[in-house]
Amino acid sequence: MAGPSGETATPVRVLLGPGPSSVHPQVTAALAAPVLGHMDPAFIKVMDDTMALLRQVFQTHNALTLPLSGTGSSGMEAALCNALEPGDTIVVGVNGYFGTRMMEMAARCGARPVPVEADWGRVIAPEAIESALRRQARVKAIAVVHAETSTGVLQPLEDIGRLAQEHGALLIVDAVTSLGGHAVAVDDWGIDICYSGTQKCLGAPPGLAPITFGDRALEALAKRQSKVQSWYLDISLLRDYWMGSPRTYHHTASSPLVLALREALRMVLAEGLAAQFKRHLTNGAALQGGLEAMGLKLFAQEGRRLSVLTAVRVPDGIDELRVRQALLNEEGIEIGGGLGELRGKIWRIGLMGYSSSKQNALMVLSALERALARQGFELSPGIGVETAERVWKMMDSLAA
Amino acid sequence: MAGPSGETATPVRVLLGPGPSSVHPQVTAALAAPVLGHMDPAFIKVMDDTMALLRQVFQTHNALTLPLSGTGSSGMEAALCNALEPGDTIVVGVNGYFGTRMMEMAARCGARPVPVEADWGRVIAPEAIESALRRQARVKAIAVVHAETSTGVLQPLEDIGRLAQEHGALLIVDAVTSLGGHAVAVDDWGIDICYSGTQKCLGAPPGLAPITFGDRALEALAKRQSKVQSWYLDISLLRDYWMGSPRTYHHTASSPLVLALREALRMVLAEGLAAQFKRHLTNGAALQGGLEAMGLKLFAQEGRRLSVLTAVRVPDGIDELRVRQALLNEEGIEIGGGLGELRGKIWRIGLMGYSSSKQNALMVLSALERALARQGFELSPGIGVETAERVWKMMDSLAA
Repeated sequence: MAGPSGETATPVRVLLGPGPSSVHPQVTAALAAPVLGHMDPAFIKVMDDTMALLRQVFQTHNALTLPLSGTGSSGMEAALCNALEPGDTIVVGVNGYFGTRMMEMAARCGARPVPVEADWGRVIAPEAIESALRRQARVKAIAVVHAETSTGVLQPLEDIGRLAQEHGALLIVDAVTSLGGHAVAVDDWGIDICYSGTQKCLGAPPGLAPITFGDRALEALAKRQSKVQSWYLDISLLRDYWMGSPRTYHHTASSPLVLALREALRMVLAEGLAAQFKRHLTNGAALQGGLEAMGLKLFAQEGRRLSVLTAVRVPDGIDELRVRQALLNEEGIEIGGGLGELRGKIWRIGLMGYSSSKQNALMVLSALERALARQGFELSPGIGVETAERVWKMMDSLAA
Repeated sequence: MAGPSGETATPVRVLLGPGPSSVHPQVTAALAAPVLGHMDPAFIKVMDDTMALLRQVFQTHNALTLPLSGTGSSGMEAALCNALEPGDTIVVGVNGYFGTRMMEMAARCGARPVPVEADWGRVIAPEAIESALRRQARVKAIAVVHAETSTGVLQPLEDIGRLAQEHGALLIVDAVTSLGGHAVAVDDWGIDICYSGTQKCLGAPPGLAPITFGDRALEALAKRQSKVQSWYLDISLLRDYWMGSPRTYHHTASSPLVLALREALRMVLAEGLAAQFKRHLTNGAALQGGLEAMGLKLFAQEGRRLSVLTAVRVPDGIDELRVRQALLNEEGIEIGGGLGELRGKIWRIGLMGYSSSKQNALMVLSALERALARQGFELSPGIGVETAERVWKMMDSLAA
């Protein structure tokens, strides 16, 4: 098949890994609209729309809510480098790959990161955070990952939000994988800075990082003694561009990415946040039921599992890469492998955004069954799909 | 006209400002291809292609040549924060808005930026750079803007490259507006770090920053005492992702933007670099001839004018914003205003990438003539377009 320049076309994948997820054709159409200048009044209207829609998805009244011109990791860096100054202490929840990354970034800001650890696959106990807060003289911020993409764990945030308020620390939350798929109640939970990515449960292409700053975060910004070390991610400069009157040029925002994000957000809110969460929950539960019925073990702590991303252990004697390659090359399905210490030990299956559908869940269960059978993994044929079907019926009857 | 979700569609503009430029439909088609995972072997092939094409456009053999996941300004930040450590001295050419921005960013890296100034609209004299180099004990780097987007000046680089070598300093060059439209001979001119944007003469959408690091830059990186302050822009981590064996996950690269960039680069090289430069030169000369024939004054120093971006003085008594608004709202043409100290004093007209065509040059001359006439600016009707036509004929006869 010939691509635009006569080269082999890139293949079409069903994206069921840890993100990016597949993009709805309506979002692709918005991406392909003619480019707009970054100061065009028509684009400023698109920026305003996008900020308003993001506030709804973040469940916040924070005025300063916008997409950064970088991927989710730039959101992590922006949150940390705007919040922290050299010498500041930050307590970081570390129970996976992305908590570890926060430690590294905080250190590069010249801050003193204090880890609060839990085993990978388990949540961070609020008591452990509290005890770290008590041991430190003055803590500027607490940072935790809401949805640990490396392990499939969903971190409860209410208690940590309360602790942050009590100890006068900012609460920074990584919602890269959760936003749009699980509730992220920025205002109700007392989150001061929250960032995400566009390419997971929001269903937009990768390239932007939605971020929001609350009043306590703005107060901390106003009290800074030093400039934010990143000019590109300095939220005060970005505020003048996105919200100033008049708008002050900062950088050339990518109109195609912002138009696509706006369209994806419109679709999320047209479906409704509650319906979105329920769709992700139901499809995730069905997938997990099916995987367990096949005899596979889920990695994350029971009761704290993400519905949008499922980490499943590779059974003994199975070549995990061969399974992923079979899915990709023979069925066009992408799933993820393990990161860091989980490399080779788990698969990560995402049902996020437009990718979170009944047919995708069934497709990946059935493909996995075939790939495992080929390596001699014993299972009752069809049991995964059958069980998933039962879960949907059960969930549907619960709703009725 | 209804957009994808029934909202008013965004307008279609002819982009003749300082960038973004308009995107060829073939590039848009690549942008709209299905999303690929950031570790998909098919995407790794796209990354390899893109790096190879970028090397050709940068005229370099540098292996470490890739697009950063951010806009041109992230390229500036990446160049400076990878090259500089706290306390380092950097000599910065300041003859416009973007040189000033480099000063600011270098200071945020903890470095000591030493400005070498010229009037806005004039080039930096190599002698002035040399004298700054002599006055400083040890200079880590020299940074200059090749194409000052704020003034329309093209900075010659060969002499500065020679000085950098002689004084053991790295040469950092901002080629955001020049790459693809003017020659940027990274190897021949002794440039150690060069960055650009995708949305100008390369003709791709905004969102990525191509960057290249030469051997001397890599040696300096290897000798660093401290980590690069930005994790997101740390070129050593990016190298492991873009070029490692195996590739190491760093962030989720935006496959649509990289696919669009690859297609735009293919089109640049299919036309041929020499033909590209000639097209930009010819259309720029015709536009400038036409503007001068209309009685307008060009801002930049004669003989050092960019062909891809023309700064033209706003005549006395003319409301510059009204002219831009007339072009945008009545004819769908975007041109730029002045930045910083030139705000309200100049217009900036870009003929870049796919936007650099004879019909666009004629269209903007004619539209400008009408908008100026409406404000009572005296000119011989049609003289601009007529003169531009003469310039094309002359240029064509020269080539024959």
